[in-house]
Amino acid sequence: MKRIVLLGASGSIGTQTLDVISQHPDLYQLTAFGVGRNIDMARKILKDFPVDHVTVARDEDAAVLAKEYPLVHFSAGDDAMCELVSSTDYDVLVNALVGFVGFRPTLAAIHSHHDVALANKETLVCGGAVINKALQEYHCHLYPIDSEHSAIFQCLQGNSMKQVKRLIITCSGGAFRNKTREELGDVTVEDALAHPNWNMGAKITVDCANLMNKGFEVTEAHWLFNMPYEQIDVLMHRESVVHSMVEYVDHSVMAQLGAPDMRLPIQYSLSWPDRLPLNEEHPLDLTQVGTLHFDKPDTKRFPLLALAYEAGKKGGNLDAVMNGANEVANAAFRNHEIGFLSIEDIVTKAVHSATFHELVTAQDVEDADQWGRAFAMEKVKGALL
Amino acid sequence: MKRIVLLGASGSIGTQTLDVISQHPDLYQLTAFGVGRNIDMARKILKDFPVDHVTVARDEDAAVLAKEYPLVHFSAGDDAMCELVSSTDYDVLVNALVGFVGFRPTLAAIHSHHDVALANKETLVCGGAVINKALQEYHCHLYPIDSEHSAIFQCLQGNSMKQVKRLIITCSGGAFRNKTREELGDVTVEDALAHPNWNMGAKITVDCANLMNKGFEVTEAHWLFNMPYEQIDVLMHRESVVHSMVEYVDHSVMAQLGAPDMRLPIQYSLSWPDRLPLNEEHPLDLTQVGTLHFDKPDTKRFPLLALAYEAGKKGGNLDAVMNGANEVANAAFRNHEIGFLSIEDIVTKAVHSATFHELVTAQDVEDADQWGRAFAMEKVKGALL
Repeated sequence: MKRIVLLGASGSIGTQTLDVISQHPDLYQLTAFGVGRNIDMARKILKDFPVDHVTVARDEDAAVLAKEYPLVHFSAGDDAMCELVSSTDYDVLVNALVGFVGFRPTLAAIHSHHDVALANKETLVCGGAVINKALQEYHCHLYPIDSEHSAIFQCLQGNSMKQVKRLIITCSGGAFRNKTREELGDVTVEDALAHPNWNMGAKITVDCANLMNKGFEVTEAHWLFNMPYEQIDVLMHRESVVHSMVEYVDHSVMAQLGAPDMRLPIQYSLSWPDRLPLNEEHPLDLTQVGTLHFDKPDTKRFPLLALAYEAGKKGGNLDAVMNGANEVANAAFRNHEIGFLSIEDIVTKAVHSATFHELVTAQDVEDADQWGRAFAMEKVKGALL
Repeated sequence: MKRIVLLGASGSIGTQTLDVISQHPDLYQLTAFGVGRNIDMARKILKDFPVDHVTVARDEDAAVLAKEYPLVHFSAGDDAMCELVSSTDYDVLVNALVGFVGFRPTLAAIHSHHDVALANKETLVCGGAVINKALQEYHCHLYPIDSEHSAIFQCLQGNSMKQVKRLIITCSGGAFRNKTREELGDVTVEDALAHPNWNMGAKITVDCANLMNKGFEVTEAHWLFNMPYEQIDVLMHRESVVHSMVEYVDHSVMAQLGAPDMRLPIQYSLSWPDRLPLNEEHPLDLTQVGTLHFDKPDTKRFPLLALAYEAGKKGGNLDAVMNGANEVANAAFRNHEIGFLSIEDIVTKAVHSATFHELVTAQDVEDADQWGRAFAMEKVKGALL
């Protein structure tokens, strides 16, 4: 029985993680979870999963729930998440938080000797160096949940990292893959949220629309698989059927394909090295799909992908600055405060304005994130004047 | 250092095996080889590879060569191949023979406790039950060289056979994939030899044109991976970029992709579980390929694929009968003695006319092969009258 703590339980990855756990009650047990502000979801989960600790974002929500469920312990706030993953008795943290808020709980789980199944890519984008050092020191493992990284992880099974030539991360192109640079100036939030293949949360869907998300995935792959940026390529693939690939020194290319269902990588992150049945209503049928397309990425239309490579290669604080600025700019766009192209403008300026620092401690990562956020907030304010 | 005996050295797989061996002189050493009637090729190989035993098809050729190379031992005939693989000191037999003639040397290698890298699919098509029993008894391994089976083998690495849902063998469709059933009546030998993707020997290229080869590959996969026929599917894929796939119980599909270069599966059969660099002039570039197509196979136009499933499911002697009849009919077509559609006619009648027998011994396999050949020869004779 694998005992699971789930953070971000009310989001897209969170609810799908709960589905995977329900499908295998003999193998997986939810021990505790966190839900942010969605306390209705907390009530719903408590119906199906009898846990004894729940963490939420706000003290007042914790107080309300504590009255309803006297046998459950409720805590609130970011520190409470770290305390939960440090003090609870469990086997693996599923980190399904969105944004940099996921960094500290990941580190806290590792520091308390726990493996982490990671959907929160910002953890590695911002603090990959710190996380990898902690993993080594505490002998813990990170299992990728992002579909691309799960695909690469699957393609690496039974092979040696030394014999990898390059990682090939596929990219659907997001909502605006057919738009010209000019057309991108006029797109709306609603346009950006219409992802052609995947049904995901709002923040990541916008990140997909300007390829920031793909840039983050390159950086995530760099840290997860200890691969130089020169050996990580992005390949446009509009159908999202090939989830990613690995080319080896003999030029053999291993690929993982599947339906656009995040439950597969979630489940694999828990079942590895085994595979378990998954009740998939529409498994991949290539005779139905018929045709798969591949193309080069266009970093002229989508410069944030190139920026992520640039920041990643320079390293240090620049990835965390990029991510912090992006979180602010992405939210401002979704709040109709800035236009779509202003996101890339703000994020690019943040990276190019930041003074380079090496990242050694978790505090260094937080400082870099804060700097990026502050820079972007100034720019958003300026846009609103 | 892995010491290699290579049978079929003058053919397409044979010469590419020599290329792989030359690329890794620190890892692989050719110990002995066989070349059939191509004694010029024997001379050429002897220039580059100082072996001490060569086997050829005919006594007179062996005598000629023995005079030219007094320090090399030459033998001749089918029995000599079996003796060579039984008595020589080596690590792995690369069986690159074409046709049922490859069966006895495979068995002889296993009986003398040798692993076999197998390009000769007829070995398993005809005598899979006998071969698998011998592998168990002598604790030997079979490594697939067929590109499809190598792809499946690669897709299985790091996974459990128990968690396989199905094997998906891709099929280019061969030279006549765009022809109607009516048009197939008029095709010539030259038409059949023009394979769209792969450059192979004549016999297998004709087998590709009527999908007999794909049927053989289904049977080969059945024996190589101990997989029921119900869990082996054929998927049309005209570009031959995806060499085959494995779907698992979680609906994850692992695929192996690459350039149409047989040196990759040859090398992997020798290097497994490692991978070695391969000097590939045109490695797969999906941005160049652009589009991949997938479709269902059409067993109305190409009934030999369905026949192979039928024979395989019934089992016993029927696969060997099918293969024996096909070898004769395929050769008769290449000799302009019968038309293209007569191949399928003869092979189908052979399978449907044969009395079912279980295959227990190697002699049973040879008898079934002989029966299929005799049946087909009668039919070819009838066609020539």
